[in-house]
Amino acid sequence: MIAEIITIGDEILIGQIVDTNSAWMAKQLNQVGIKVKQVTSVSDNADHIIEALDAARKRANIILMTGGLGPTKDDITKLTLARYFNMGFRRDEETLKQVESFFNTRKRPMLEINRAQADVPDGCQVIQNRNGTAPCMWFEDGGTIFVSMAGVPFEMMYLMEEEILPRLKSRFQLPFIYHKTILTASIGESYLAQEIEAIEDSLPEYIKLAYLPKLGQVRLRLSASGTDEALVKKEVDYYAQQLVEKVKPYVIAEDDIPLEKALLQLMEQNGLKFSTAESCTGGYIAHLITQIPGSSKSFEGGGVTYSNELKQIILGVQAQTLANFGAVSEETVKEMALGANQRFKTDYAVAVSGIAGPDGGMPGKPVGTVWIAVAYKDQVTAKLFNFGDRRIQNIERSAAAALTMLFTQVKLQLTK
Amino acid sequence: MIAEIITIGDEILIGQIVDTNSAWMAKQLNQVGIKVKQVTSVSDNADHIIEALDAARKRANIILMTGGLGPTKDDITKLTLARYFNMGFRRDEETLKQVESFFNTRKRPMLEINRAQADVPDGCQVIQNRNGTAPCMWFEDGGTIFVSMAGVPFEMMYLMEEEILPRLKSRFQLPFIYHKTILTASIGESYLAQEIEAIEDSLPEYIKLAYLPKLGQVRLRLSASGTDEALVKKEVDYYAQQLVEKVKPYVIAEDDIPLEKALLQLMEQNGLKFSTAESCTGGYIAHLITQIPGSSKSFEGGGVTYSNELKQIILGVQAQTLANFGAVSEETVKEMALGANQRFKTDYAVAVSGIAGPDGGMPGKPVGTVWIAVAYKDQVTAKLFNFGDRRIQNIERSAAAALTMLFTQVKLQLTK
Repeated sequence: MIAEIITIGDEILIGQIVDTNSAWMAKQLNQVGIKVKQVTSVSDNADHIIEALDAARKRANIILMTGGLGPTKDDITKLTLARYFNMGFRRDEETLKQVESFFNTRKRPMLEINRAQADVPDGCQVIQNRNGTAPCMWFEDGGTIFVSMAGVPFEMMYLMEEEILPRLKSRFQLPFIYHKTILTASIGESYLAQEIEAIEDSLPEYIKLAYLPKLGQVRLRLSASGTDEALVKKEVDYYAQQLVEKVKPYVIAEDDIPLEKALLQLMEQNGLKFSTAESCTGGYIAHLITQIPGSSKSFEGGGVTYSNELKQIILGVQAQTLANFGAVSEETVKEMALGANQRFKTDYAVAVSGIAGPDGGMPGKPVGTVWIAVAYKDQVTAKLFNFGDRRIQNIERSAAAALTMLFTQVKLQLTK
Repeated sequence: MIAEIITIGDEILIGQIVDTNSAWMAKQLNQVGIKVKQVTSVSDNADHIIEALDAARKRANIILMTGGLGPTKDDITKLTLARYFNMGFRRDEETLKQVESFFNTRKRPMLEINRAQADVPDGCQVIQNRNGTAPCMWFEDGGTIFVSMAGVPFEMMYLMEEEILPRLKSRFQLPFIYHKTILTASIGESYLAQEIEAIEDSLPEYIKLAYLPKLGQVRLRLSASGTDEALVKKEVDYYAQQLVEKVKPYVIAEDDIPLEKALLQLMEQNGLKFSTAESCTGGYIAHLITQIPGSSKSFEGGGVTYSNELKQIILGVQAQTLANFGAVSEETVKEMALGANQRFKTDYAVAVSGIAGPDGGMPGKPVGTVWIAVAYKDQVTAKLFNFGDRRIQNIERSAAAALTMLFTQVKLQLTK
């Protein structure tokens, strides 16, 4: 079964928003055995939407659309679909009730354009959207399924999980698609490829290996599909285990999980508590950690000590250290990590101090200079990095390096 | 001049990564007057890539590709382009030197597959990639330009800014495209549409108005293109001003900037310092603020006080308050904000405490319950929200609400 995703909206094509919907949808579809052939982003233009629909139905059996269903005049997906399928409009009473209750519970006035959200092409099946006012519309035409959903991510997510995926699963006999991902760090893509070349060459035709590098980490992903679920799993897992054995020192996780989740699991399994002390990463490390449900089991919190004053107040860094060596120095970052451990009563603390840019560079300390320290109780080690002159990239790479360094230190202590 | 973007990689179509490249590229292209007609994501499959190229060249003059240029076997973009343009391969000496120096400066061993990065289709123009080992390739065929770039975001960004955009600008007479964006908060999309209906109806045909709702904010975007830069700007700005006057109380910024940047500007212009005290948002508010260059001018930092202990240690919340009312309560969140102001010596502090989920809900305090407080010196106000039961969305909406509440409070104090 092949699907395509069409995301609709001028805001995507002028780069005002990043389309995060399609990646999320693709992941869900893959998990139930539906392959996504193509993702297409088009403008709020009827002819262009129709062209994309015509092209997609030649390649796919299921076409999922998001966007262009708002109540305002720039939203034309519904009109375009009525034209495409040659349908008139009807007012859907259940949708109208849903829209009314949406406004009632929020104690907001309801307008005529909100009421018009209940007008739908008369040949579509309406699926209620519990989290918004634009109903989801399901069309079938010449054996192809077309579904139009609101572009607001959480409205789309609810519809996919509760309505669309269950319908697709009960409708079709879906093959089993299996991915197995191994997360590695501290080894380059090419070097990794050389290490595992013999295993890669021995893979059966139907198992694909992909390298996904990102921020000093490389994910190795084995993929295969088939009808015999047990067999596919067994074969892929066999080769995955070979890969893991071959590059063991670099393996962070044998799952498709982010580094911070692997770190949290390691901490929790060993009953450890940790904290953060962030300057240039400005809370990003703590944010990555606290995105993961259950992070409070081992993460206590930390300081976002952006100013020198806060480094002293929150972490107890000595004024003298800051004066003598500067905020971006081995001495300061070590005091930050030790201070976090002592004050926050944690086993481990990771501290980052650097120059994220674009300003703040100085002789001997160019923009991108970043010191990272990891403290285990009252022992501390620090390392110097340079992550280049782009601010956001700098923050992201600093955070990834800090989490990797912390993970590696914990592993090291545990094997001592 | 019309461009299309093709992003290549199985990892996009199985949803393992979000394609952020295309939004960034689209924004850059729009700014120089090149319209992006479509963004297409395809798999690492030669036939599919060729099908996408054939379709794109019918609609566009410039086709920009990212991805599939890594050194490993799953990367087939280069081979596919050679086949598509019917070219052989040559080894590019400048690229080889670039690859060698890349490995030398990183003190990493160079492998044969890295050397092969210097093999390029013999009819393409090579553009050096200073930040990686995959060269950028520029092809021209039947009046259409095709550019293939690495998919690693910062490699692509450097190539676009330093090489591709300057070449396109000097090659073509580009029309002027103008967008004017107004950021509003605390008003729903439909209500906003009703307020500005008369202005919207009076817009000339060539000026388009779009509503872009996100996290309790709505961006209004006016767009127009033309050859007379001054005239286009003048007309769009005229209507933008009318919109601003009509919905003044809800206007946060008259620019396409994020809420946190508008907040930083307001703080800096008025010589104010502020801090954060975050529980359930786990550092996300501080991260949003510190993403903005120059944020250190008014943002001092703050506490990520995830545990009850850290709420006491970092912010001085009373143990009694936590015991009597719980961490997610009006009393606690007020003490958090006041504590941040007092300890960090700031004018304003914003504090958030809530239940992000999926666990942690309790009778009377379901998952999604969030208290937000804003302190101005020793005065404090707090507000209760419920942001539903999805963790990530909960964190994002809490942060947006906290920043809006802080912005509104500062404005209020300034007009007193």
